[in-house]
Amino acid sequence: MRQRNKPWADEYLQEKNHIVINDPKSNKGNWNQLFNNNNPIHVEIGSGKGQFILGMAKQHPDINFIGIELAKSIIVSAVQKIDKESLANVFMLNENAIDVREMFADDEISMIYLNFSDPWPKNRHEKRRLTYERFLNQYQDILCTNGEVILKTDNRGLFEYSVVSFSQYGMNIKELNVDLHAIEDETNVMTEYEEKFSAKGQPIYRCKAVFEK
Amino acid sequence: MRQRNKPWADEYLQEKNHIVINDPKSNKGNWNQLFNNNNPIHVEIGSGKGQFILGMAKQHPDINFIGIELAKSIIVSAVQKIDKESLANVFMLNENAIDVREMFADDEISMIYLNFSDPWPKNRHEKRRLTYERFLNQYQDILCTNGEVILKTDNRGLFEYSVVSFSQYGMNIKELNVDLHAIEDETNVMTEYEEKFSAKGQPIYRCKAVFEK
Ligand SMILES: C[S@@+](CC[C@H](N)C(=O)[O-])C[C@H]1O[C@@H](n2cnc3c(N)ncnc32)[C@H](O)[C@@H]1O
Ligand SMILES: C[S@@+](CC[C@H](N)C(=O)[O-])C[C@H]1O[C@@H](n2cnc3c(N)ncnc32)[C@H](O)[C@@H]1O
Repeated sequence: MRQRNKPWADEYLQEKNHIVINDPKSNKGNWNQLFNNNNPIHVEIGSGKGQFILGMAKQHPDINFIGIELAKSIIVSAVQKIDKESLANVFMLNENAIDVREMFADDEISMIYLNFSDPWPKNRHEKRRLTYERFLNQYQDILCTNGEVILKTDNRGLFEYSVVSFSQYGMNIKELNVDLHAIEDETNVMTEYEEKFSAKGQPIYRCKAVFEK
Repeated sequence: MRQRNKPWADEYLQEKNHIVINDPKSNKGNWNQLFNNNNPIHVEIGSGKGQFILGMAKQHPDINFIGIELAKSIIVSAVQKIDKESLANVFMLNENAIDVREMFADDEISMIYLNFSDPWPKNRHEKRRLTYERFLNQYQDILCTNGEVILKTDNRGLFEYSVVSFSQYGMNIKELNVDLHAIEDETNVMTEYEEKFSAKGQPIYRCKAVFEK
């Protein structure tokens, strides 16, 4: 994603600290308290400009959403959208998901979305892919029983790698979709990348996988 | 596949009984004897007109191939091709694979190919799909340790169903390919259907799965 330098971003994110949670590790195990309800919590890793998480939060008021986005200059767009709609069921974290296990307690999360994650096509960058076993190991800890990892992508290589990685790790493939937009699905919330690539006629792939606990 | 009535087929298949093995159940456990060597045995279910099995048998003289094809009027084309090339490493069976377990002993087979299998798209026909659990259960018996099931198809529904079915059964997904012809692969032997559908620009899907024994 294009990152323009946004010198005002730091200050803005500080100001919106009811949406962007500082020091998320200190809330490990207590997220429901922060949301002020006991609804299930869904996490999106690499939320980008927030179109997906915003759409989902509006469609599912009884689910709590937490978006994790590394890049300051990108997450600001998500925060602006959420702020405008004054949604109470979504928080954003300006963090690197490499330590996601430290932000959430065991079984605290019901669903993890990986939307158009960076593909890292070179073999030597395998470890950076969000479906590499080191990440799956963390997802397994924080997900509750029957909790799902849902990957959506236009990237063949990442998709093929991820399905094999899920399976090799011992996860169960619950759904595979090799052309998500072939059949219209009103409930599917599109991400920015999804809109862009599907408009070009590229197939969108989706896979849902669960850990056997 | 179009089936024209071929009144001469019965007689022809009888005549070619060095290629088309009658009563395959009586050879259960003794196929290597019939091939007269100890090479691994690969089975293709639904061989159609035999282009794949013929190409594979020529490419891999050190592997034995057995093609199973239900339709008499179709299998004759495969037998004619094999006869012309006088290949010693391929047999054909004019059988229904629904009883494949009765044709082979436990661990007798190293690889099973399902090429462009009939998709049976209706839910109520699920049991007829060659990747339904009743079939997987039989494949598990006859395949040796690390033996693979390889599905190639242009059919989205069958592909998506099969990958989930493999995984739900407890198989490991070793390879997933959602656009087989995107990268040229000299070793890939095309089937009749594969040639037809890829020429139309349709993606060809492939999945390799193994049982954990
Ligand atoms: C290709 S973009 C996709 C954005 C959005 N999900 C979409 O589908 O439009 C990937 C995003 O993931 C973020 N990202 C990559 N690695 C990350 C990590 N380890 N932790 C948090 N965010 C990450 C990037 O900054 C980028 O915004
Ligand atoms: C769609 S055609 C594909 C033929 C060939 N594999 C190809 O890719 O060109 C499927 C073939 O499988 C055969 N077939 C279907 N069910 C079968 C079964 N239970 N046992 C053996 N053959 C079967 C059909 O007769 C048909 O020839």
